[in-house]
Amino acid sequence: MIWTLTELAEALGTSFHGPQDRTIESAGTLASAKPDQLSFLANRAYTEQLANTHAGAVIVHPDHVDACPTAAIVSNNPYATWASALRLLNPPPKRQTGVHATAVVDDSAMVDSAAYIGPHCVIGSKARIGSGAVIGPHTIIEDAAEIGENAHLVGNVYVGPRCILGDRVIVHPGVVIGADGFGLAMDQGQWQKVPQLGRVVVGDDCEIGANTTIDRGALDDTQLGVDVRIDNQVQIAHNVQIGDHTAIAGCVGIAGSTHIGAYCMIAGASGIGGHLTIADQVVITAMSTVVTSIDQPGTYGSGIPAQPHQSWKRTLVRLTRLDEWAQRIKKLEKSKQPKD
Amino acid sequence: MIWTLTELAEALGTSFHGPQDRTIESAGTLASAKPDQLSFLANRAYTEQLANTHAGAVIVHPDHVDACPTAAIVSNNPYATWASALRLLNPPPKRQTGVHATAVVDDSAMVDSAAYIGPHCVIGSKARIGSGAVIGPHTIIEDAAEIGENAHLVGNVYVGPRCILGDRVIVHPGVVIGADGFGLAMDQGQWQKVPQLGRVVVGDDCEIGANTTIDRGALDDTQLGVDVRIDNQVQIAHNVQIGDHTAIAGCVGIAGSTHIGAYCMIAGASGIGGHLTIADQVVITAMSTVVTSIDQPGTYGSGIPAQPHQSWKRTLVRLTRLDEWAQRIKKLEKSKQPKD
Amino acid sequence: MIWTLTELAEALGTSFHGPQDRTIESAGTLASAKPDQLSFLANRAYTEQLANTHAGAVIVHPDHVDACPTAAIVSNNPYATWASALRLLNPPPKRQTGVHATAVVDDSAMVDSAAYIGPHCVIGSKARIGSGAVIGPHTIIEDAAEIGENAHLVGNVYVGPRCILGDRVIVHPGVVIGADGFGLAMDQGQWQKVPQLGRVVVGDDCEIGANTTIDRGALDDTQLGVDVRIDNQVQIAHNVQIGDHTAIAGCVGIAGSTHIGAYCMIAGASGIGGHLTIADQVVITAMSTVVTSIDQPGTYGSGIPAQPHQSWKRTLVRLTRLDEWAQRIKKLEKSKQPKD
Repeated sequence: MIWTLTELAEALGTSFHGPQDRTIESAGTLASAKPDQLSFLANRAYTEQLANTHAGAVIVHPDHVDACPTAAIVSNNPYATWASALRLLNPPPKRQTGVHATAVVDDSAMVDSAAYIGPHCVIGSKARIGSGAVIGPHTIIEDAAEIGENAHLVGNVYVGPRCILGDRVIVHPGVVIGADGFGLAMDQGQWQKVPQLGRVVVGDDCEIGANTTIDRGALDDTQLGVDVRIDNQVQIAHNVQIGDHTAIAGCVGIAGSTHIGAYCMIAGASGIGGHLTIADQVVITAMSTVVTSIDQPGTYGSGIPAQPHQSWKRTLVRLTRLDEWAQRIKKLEKSKQPKD
Repeated sequence: MIWTLTELAEALGTSFHGPQDRTIESAGTLASAKPDQLSFLANRAYTEQLANTHAGAVIVHPDHVDACPTAAIVSNNPYATWASALRLLNPPPKRQTGVHATAVVDDSAMVDSAAYIGPHCVIGSKARIGSGAVIGPHTIIEDAAEIGENAHLVGNVYVGPRCILGDRVIVHPGVVIGADGFGLAMDQGQWQKVPQLGRVVVGDDCEIGANTTIDRGALDDTQLGVDVRIDNQVQIAHNVQIGDHTAIAGCVGIAGSTHIGAYCMIAGASGIGGHLTIADQVVITAMSTVVTSIDQPGTYGSGIPAQPHQSWKRTLVRLTRLDEWAQRIKKLEKSKQPKD
Repeated sequence: MIWTLTELAEALGTSFHGPQDRTIESAGTLASAKPDQLSFLANRAYTEQLANTHAGAVIVHPDHVDACPTAAIVSNNPYATWASALRLLNPPPKRQTGVHATAVVDDSAMVDSAAYIGPHCVIGSKARIGSGAVIGPHTIIEDAAEIGENAHLVGNVYVGPRCILGDRVIVHPGVVIGADGFGLAMDQGQWQKVPQLGRVVVGDDCEIGANTTIDRGALDDTQLGVDVRIDNQVQIAHNVQIGDHTAIAGCVGIAGSTHIGAYCMIAGASGIGGHLTIADQVVITAMSTVVTSIDQPGTYGSGIPAQPHQSWKRTLVRLTRLDEWAQRIKKLEKSKQPKD
């Protein structure tokens, strides 16, 4: 789709500097964009690339307009404007409707006539699929599960019995929503499975990354608020609750019954223990281990940056003897005191 | 299914206090249960909720009978009794039998007439599916693999060639059993794949969580004992052996050829190195790194609890200079010694 | 397939010691091999097992020929020779060709006549499947994706639109290639999805382990070089680039836009931050956290070996007070100085 600068700025609700009739056809990075492409600057680290870009126009913050060597689309939030511009330049294909001949849809399932069910899908009894929803190939929607309007399950997704996904939810391949939680009771030397009777309830506008797993609740539900964004390979255990607009990066694990607030950001590969409460607006840095509740907004972490192996080995030797060193310091202090 | 207290206690093999004809229809938490619901107290932290519950009956330890404001079902192991009660109140649906029309079953596969093969399953040559087994939709059972009696593969499971699952094994969606192990030989600057010829053998009564992977052995087999319980997104490499009744929480990774004993408990997101031996009854705490064998029962760990970012940054600066600080303490001690 | 020692050594390009007409039928470990089996010694830790082996022949380094109690096949790289021998002893089954009747193949897809498309596969419009490629059951190849010659997608693989896999690539079950990257812009309190327009491009001879995820690039591509070897449950974010012959063990996570060099080895469960550059021939030890670029070859790490819980608890108490201890040492040093 080809846009003039005027049209693009108008659609984006921004002002611009540059020739009104310059045409933009697609998008590229500052380093690679060509004269018919749009680019953006959202991170000061790339300011140098701005000076040398061949892009036809660049979305910039007002602070960078003067430094922009080409047409500038001016935004106080260049990255969000960039997201909007990409959607304008790359409109999604028209959504299909109808049920593929190879799909197995139970007679009692309620599939909206404006929904699409792809090849080899399996839709259980009394499942509901909302208007505009796209259920990609090989997806399993178990009995009585509900998929909201305009949801998009890309393909190869599993949604367990009675689980509920809100409107406009996006789910990537390999996601498992509503498997049994890890509930076990030890009885005379044998594990007994504790039936998992709750659901998973996912709010509107959530996005769930590839191969992520969200277990159903034991009795009550596992819940994601609205606009929760989950990356790939995240594990969310039974009865976890996640507040609105929280974002969780790849490989994070959250143990059972933990409640996470709104507008939190959990960086990659962190582990969060069970039965904790994390306040709103908490940031957890990468590969941290959270084992106590956090009741104040702020940034928390315990990741240790990798170091050259030889020096790290020396540090480890010292680390395991910290208690001994502390005793030696106390002894030194004591021996000094009488002389003071 | 509706039960009187008398019937329920009899079925559970417990005593009870309260009206014999009180009826229980379902189950709920102490906080949410209604007068026709059963609840339980297994964790002292919830004793306060017991005092205020509206449940019709509560499963409690003898120590809590007096504190129970409603009917009490008395058990020395309330959580195990709770698991049994949930099964009574929520009997599983009758298992289907037969082969769905869309399943692709090799002529030489041996599917018991009392087994069920769901939509779009693919069953390879000479595979065996035992009596009462339920193979959920989209499951692939490769050539000569064997699935035990009353096993339940929920859906979208992959079982590789010649792998064996025991009786009553439960496998959740997205599990991959019997992919090739990570066996590579460097040869003149190129990796050569080492063929992986072993199997995965899973004992009776195991449960395997969503998106977990268990690689086939290189020559000998990868083995899980009986009643091994594996949570979601666990990675078990080739030739690992796991003892009976061991439980492994989400996101754990176990490297090749490691042997783990019986009745171990490995907490979430821990990593266990290769070629190790872990004794019986070892507990590993969350996000620990195990790099040496453990020959004594007990609890081990190396996870670091997350802290406020600013103080953790200061700690990290000190941490990387531990060796220097140790030298300075030694120097202080030396300078003091002549005076002693 | 039965081989004489003479035939086997000739096919492997090695010398041997022992009876020319001894026959070898299969392979086993030193401890379990029988007289008609081949074994190998690649790790000095198993030298004792060599002395007691019942194998018919053993692949050994020249240094171990004298210690070998049976026939010896002599190689300077016994493990690589072992890999070759296993392929000779276990030739893969003849690859099938053709399209299974249950596969859904778009009319515009280009499937080579010497390729195989398994049961229930879904092949999108303008997708290309090369000669000799084997696409196992339940695999989804989206529109305009390309699969190279003799590639082997074992089953239940997802390949997103326009993604490219090279020749002889092996992909294990549950792998998701080309899901959207985790690109989000915060706009007035709501997350906005940033369209992910790049591809995943995987070079020749790569192998990708079960349930691994590789996200498509945001604008430019996510790229794997040639002969990159990825284990199970690895997460590779958008715009990551991985150099030729690099090997990545299970459960590793690599954040967006990081470039990893050639011949690197990343051990299990490590996390590598975003926007970093890692040089060639870097080794990262298990469960390390990499948060800065590494410009020199060598070994790096930050994993902490698990310890008995009680002593680790004491260490943690000291660890969080390192800053305080450092101050106390400084004070001690100061109090001493005037006397020097």
